[in-house]
Amino acid sequence: MAVGLKAPEALPAIPGIRLGIARAGIRKSGAPDICLIELAEGGSAAAVFTRNAFCAAPVTVAREHLRAATPRYLVINAGNANAGTGAQGQQDALDTCQHMAELAGTSAQRVLPFSTGVIGECLPMDKLLPALGLARDDLAADHWGKAATAIMTTDTLPKGVSRSFETSSGELLITGIAKGAGMIRPDMATMLAFVGTNAAVDANFLQELLQECVDESFNRITIDGDTSTNDACVVLASGELANDPIDSRTHTLFDPFMRGLRFVCHQLAQAIVRDGEGATKFVTITVAGGRNAQECLDVGYTIAHSPLVKTALFASDANWGRILAAIGRAGLAELDVSRVSVSINGVIVAQGGCRAPDLSEELANGAMAAEEILLRVELGRGGHSETLWTTDLSHEYVRINAEYRT
Amino acid sequence: MAVGLKAPEALPAIPGIRLGIARAGIRKSGAPDICLIELAEGGSAAAVFTRNAFCAAPVTVAREHLRAATPRYLVINAGNANAGTGAQGQQDALDTCQHMAELAGTSAQRVLPFSTGVIGECLPMDKLLPALGLARDDLAADHWGKAATAIMTTDTLPKGVSRSFETSSGELLITGIAKGAGMIRPDMATMLAFVGTNAAVDANFLQELLQECVDESFNRITIDGDTSTNDACVVLASGELANDPIDSRTHTLFDPFMRGLRFVCHQLAQAIVRDGEGATKFVTITVAGGRNAQECLDVGYTIAHSPLVKTALFASDANWGRILAAIGRAGLAELDVSRVSVSINGVIVAQGGCRAPDLSEELANGAMAAEEILLRVELGRGGHSETLWTTDLSHEYVRINAEYRT
Repeated sequence: MAVGLKAPEALPAIPGIRLGIARAGIRKSGAPDICLIELAEGGSAAAVFTRNAFCAAPVTVAREHLRAATPRYLVINAGNANAGTGAQGQQDALDTCQHMAELAGTSAQRVLPFSTGVIGECLPMDKLLPALGLARDDLAADHWGKAATAIMTTDTLPKGVSRSFETSSGELLITGIAKGAGMIRPDMATMLAFVGTNAAVDANFLQELLQECVDESFNRITIDGDTSTNDACVVLASGELANDPIDSRTHTLFDPFMRGLRFVCHQLAQAIVRDGEGATKFVTITVAGGRNAQECLDVGYTIAHSPLVKTALFASDANWGRILAAIGRAGLAELDVSRVSVSINGVIVAQGGCRAPDLSEELANGAMAAEEILLRVELGRGGHSETLWTTDLSHEYVRINAEYRT
Repeated sequence: MAVGLKAPEALPAIPGIRLGIARAGIRKSGAPDICLIELAEGGSAAAVFTRNAFCAAPVTVAREHLRAATPRYLVINAGNANAGTGAQGQQDALDTCQHMAELAGTSAQRVLPFSTGVIGECLPMDKLLPALGLARDDLAADHWGKAATAIMTTDTLPKGVSRSFETSSGELLITGIAKGAGMIRPDMATMLAFVGTNAAVDANFLQELLQECVDESFNRITIDGDTSTNDACVVLASGELANDPIDSRTHTLFDPFMRGLRFVCHQLAQAIVRDGEGATKFVTITVAGGRNAQECLDVGYTIAHSPLVKTALFASDANWGRILAAIGRAGLAELDVSRVSVSINGVIVAQGGCRAPDLSEELANGAMAAEEILLRVELGRGGHSETLWTTDLSHEYVRINAEYRT
C-alpha cells in the first residue's frame, strides 16, 4: 500500500563500505534478516539514537561502543528488536559484537549492534551467530539494495536513495537505506537508517551535521505517534575520496556534502512515511504563522496524531472541522481562532476560524481524494513555520497491528 | 458494540425538572433529535464546558447566559454541532434561545443552548425552531429515558443513571444522562451530560462540587484523544426537597449529595467509554508509584492514546512491549526502567523493566481476552496514583469515522 514509492533502482557503491546479507531464520518468512555493514579502516562515523527511556539493549551497546571507538562493523538483525529483554538482552547484544569481532579480527567495541522487530523476546543466538559468518562471506560494495531488503519488517518496499556531486576532489557519493514502518514517531533520532559516503569527514563535525539533518527529516515524521525503542540513524564516512576532512561550514566540500546528506535524510524519512503501515495517503502538514517553532510543531503533531483527522484522510473526506478541533486542543495560549485558516492542496476550507465562505465541498473532497495531500494551517500570530509528514489511519493499519504477533 | 453496557432501566423523575423531546429532522435517521429540559423557578445550576479553543457557538452562548442568570431551559439538539460556523452559528444559537424564551415567557439569557453532531455545517433553523414548541408540549418529569435517547449521535445505547438517598429532609434524588461516543478526551469538561437533583444546593458550591466530580470522572476518560468542541456537563438542582441549601462540606446533606453526584458522574463517564466508537474492550488504566499526579496521568494517557497498544487490546494480544514503549516515551525525567512493572488483570507481564521472569504468554493472552481489562503500571518512584478509562482501536472505529459524513 506504499504511497508514491517504488523500490530504489541500483544504489551506487560507496568505496570503502561493503555490505553482506544472510538468512538467520529470525524473520518467520524465511527472508534475509541479517545485514552486515563494514567500514574500511580510517573512516569516521556518527549516529543518533532513540530517546525512549525503554531503549533496546542494542541501542545501549551501540551508543557505548560508538563513544569508545570508530566502528568497523554494523550488525543488523530484523525480526526481533531485543528490547525489553533485560540483562539477557544486554548480554546477547554484547555477545553478537564479540562474535563478530573474533570473526573479523577486531575488538568488540568496534562492532555496533542494531535490532528491529518484535519487542520482548530474546534474540535466538543459536540462529544469529552462525549467520554472521555467512554475512561476512557475502560482503560486497554493491549490496546496498540487498541490504535495504534485509532490514525490512512490516515494510512493503525497500527504501534507499543516493546522490553524487562532482567536486574538486572527485565524485562525492552519499547513499542511504532505511526501514519503517510502524511505531514511527522518531524522537531526536529515527528508525533504522544507514547512510554511507566516500567523503572524509571529521567525526565530531559529522555528528553535528547528522543531528541537524535528522532534526528536520526523521524527527519530522510520524505514523502513529509511537516512538520506537530501537530507533537509530548511522552515517559512515569512508574517506576514500581522499579529500581534506570536512570539518567546518567554510570547507569547499561542505556545501555539496550537506546538500547530499540533507537530501538523503529527507528522502529516506519520507519513504518511511510513504510505506507507513496501512498508508493510503502521504500527508505533508505545514503550520505557518506561529509565534515560535514549538507551537507550530504542537499544532502539526496534534493534527497528525488525531485519529479523527487520520480516518477522514483515509476516507478522502475534507472534514475540516476535525482539523480545527485538533488545532483548538493543541494547547496554544491565547489562540485567536478568528485568524486561523486551513487549506487542503490549495483549496481553502476554513478561514477566520470557520467554514471558508466560498467553500465547495465537491472541490474540497476532490482535493482530499489525491494520494498526496498538503495540509496547510495559517495561525496568523507570528512568522514561524514548520513542516512534518504523516499518513492516514486505515483498516489495514488496524489489521497489521492486531495481527502482528499472530 | 458497547462493552458491558445496557440501556438504563426506568430513570426516576426529579421533582422540579421536566424533559420534552421532539423530531426536528436534523439527524438523518429521522430519530428524535431535540431535547428540552426545564428547571422549575427557584432552582440552581452549574456547568463545565470544553476548553478546546475552537469551542462551538452554543458553548460560548451557554457560558455567557449561565454567568448572567439562573437557567430555566436547556435546549439540546443532536445531529449538528453548530461548531466552526462563525458569526452565523453564534446568531443561530442566540436565536434558538430567543425563540424558546418567547414560547416560555422568559428571557433569552435563561435559556442555554447545546449542540452535538457534525462540525462545520450551519444549524437548519427552519427545522429546529418549529420543533421547540413540540418539545415544550412534550414536557414531563418522567422523560429522562427518552431524553437520553434524543441526545445520541454515534452512541449505540442511551446512557443514564440514578441514585437516591433517604435523608432527614426526605428522599434525595440524583439522575443524569450523557452521550458520547467519539471525539472523546474531555479537557476540564466532558461530552454532553445533564444531571438533575431535587436537593437545594447553593449555586457557587454546586459549581465547586461539579468541577471536583468532573475532574475525577469525565476528565479521566479518553477514547481517541480528540477533545471535542462541544463538551458540556450541566447539573440542575431543583430544590424541591426543600432542604436548607447545601452550601458547605459540613452540611448534613453534603455527604449523600456528594456521594450521589460522584457516583452519577463516574457511571456516566464510564458508560461513554463502554459505548466508545468501535469499542470491544473497556480498559481501566491505573498508574501507581509516581512522583506526582501529573506524571501518572502522562503515562496513563500515553498508553491510552497509543494506536499500537489499542490495536493489541483489540487483538487480545498481551503485547507488553508496546506498553513499555509507551511508558518510555511519556517524557518522565530520570525514569529508572528497572523499577517499572506492568500487570494485566492481575497477571504480571513486565517486571524490572522487561519480560516478567515467569510470564506465560497463554496466561497473559487469556487475561487480555477479557472484555474488561485492568492495566496496572507501577513506576516505583513515588506514592502517587491515578486511574483513567479508555477503549481499544478496532476496525469498527475506522469504519465509523471514515464513513461519518457519507
